[in-house]
Amino acid sequence: MTDTLGDHDTREFHAILAALGEAWGRADGAGFAAAFTGDADFVNILGMAFRGRDAITAQHQQIFDTIYKGSLASFELVSSRKLADGVTLAHVAATLNAPGGPRPGITRTMATAVLVKADAAWRIAAFQNTVVVTPPV
Amino acid sequence: MTDTLGDHDTREFHAILAALGEAWGRADGAGFAAAFTGDADFVNILGMAFRGRDAITAQHQQIFDTIYKGSLASFELVSSRKLADGVTLAHVAATLNAPGGPRPGITRTMATAVLVKADAAWRIAAFQNTVVVTPPV
Repeated sequence: MTDTLGDHDTREFHAILAALGEAWGRADGAGFAAAFTGDADFVNILGMAFRGRDAITAQHQQIFDTIYKGSLASFELVSSRKLADGVTLAHVAATLNAPGGPRPGITRTMATAVLVKADAAWRIAAFQNTVVVTPPV
Repeated sequence: MTDTLGDHDTREFHAILAALGEAWGRADGAGFAAAFTGDADFVNILGMAFRGRDAITAQHQQIFDTIYKGSLASFELVSSRKLADGVTLAHVAATLNAPGGPRPGITRTMATAVLVKADAAWRIAAFQNTVVVTPPV
C-alpha cells in the first residue's frame, strides 16, 4: 500500500510499534499507553471502546496480569498514509503469542491506527484491533 | 463522549450513517460504498483489510448476496471529535439483524471511522468494524 510519508516519520512509526511490543513483553501497562495521546480512543478485540491514556494503561495492565500473563506481542506497520498535516492513517498487523488464557498460542490481529503529531512527536490518537479470522474453506 | 463538531457536521455524519443502513437494506454494495472516499480503507469483522471504493462495493455486494441476504443493519454515531481541519474521528455502534448465515439474529459491532471533508462533503476515509463480544461472567 502507498506510503506517502517521509522516511523520518516512517522510522518513528516503526519505533512506536516496537515500543508497544517491548512494553507488552514487560507487562507494562503504562509503558504501552505511553505511545498514545492523553485523550486517545481504543477499541479492543472484544469491541470494547475506552478513552484516555489512563484507561488504556488500566485495561492493558489488567490483561497483562491475568489472561495474557507471560505473553508476547509484536506490531508490524502494514501501511501508512497522510490524511492531513500531522494526521496519519496506519494499518498494523499484530501477533500475540500467549502461553495460556482464552487464546493460547498465536493470535493474529489487524488494527487501524490514527497517529497525530503533537509537540513534535507522533502519538496514537485512535486504535482499533480485530482478530484475523480465517473462514473455513 | 465529547463532540466538538458543529451541528451541521454532526447532522451530515448522521445522514451518512443512515445512508449506510439504507443501502444495506437494499443490498446495494455501490450505494453502501458511496459514503466512502475513492481510496478508503476498510477492515471488516474478520480482520480482512481492503482498500478503495471498488473493493468496498464488491466485498459488500458479495455478503449482501450470500451470508447476509435479507439482513438489515443500522449504524449509530457514538462519538465524534475533530483531529484536524477536515479530519474527524468517530465511533459507530452498528446492529446487524440477519435471518440466517453464520450470524443469525442480532450481532452488535463497534467501529472506528475516520471522516474527511473533500469537495465540501464528508466521506469515510477509514472504517474498522469489530464484533462486540460479551465475555462470560
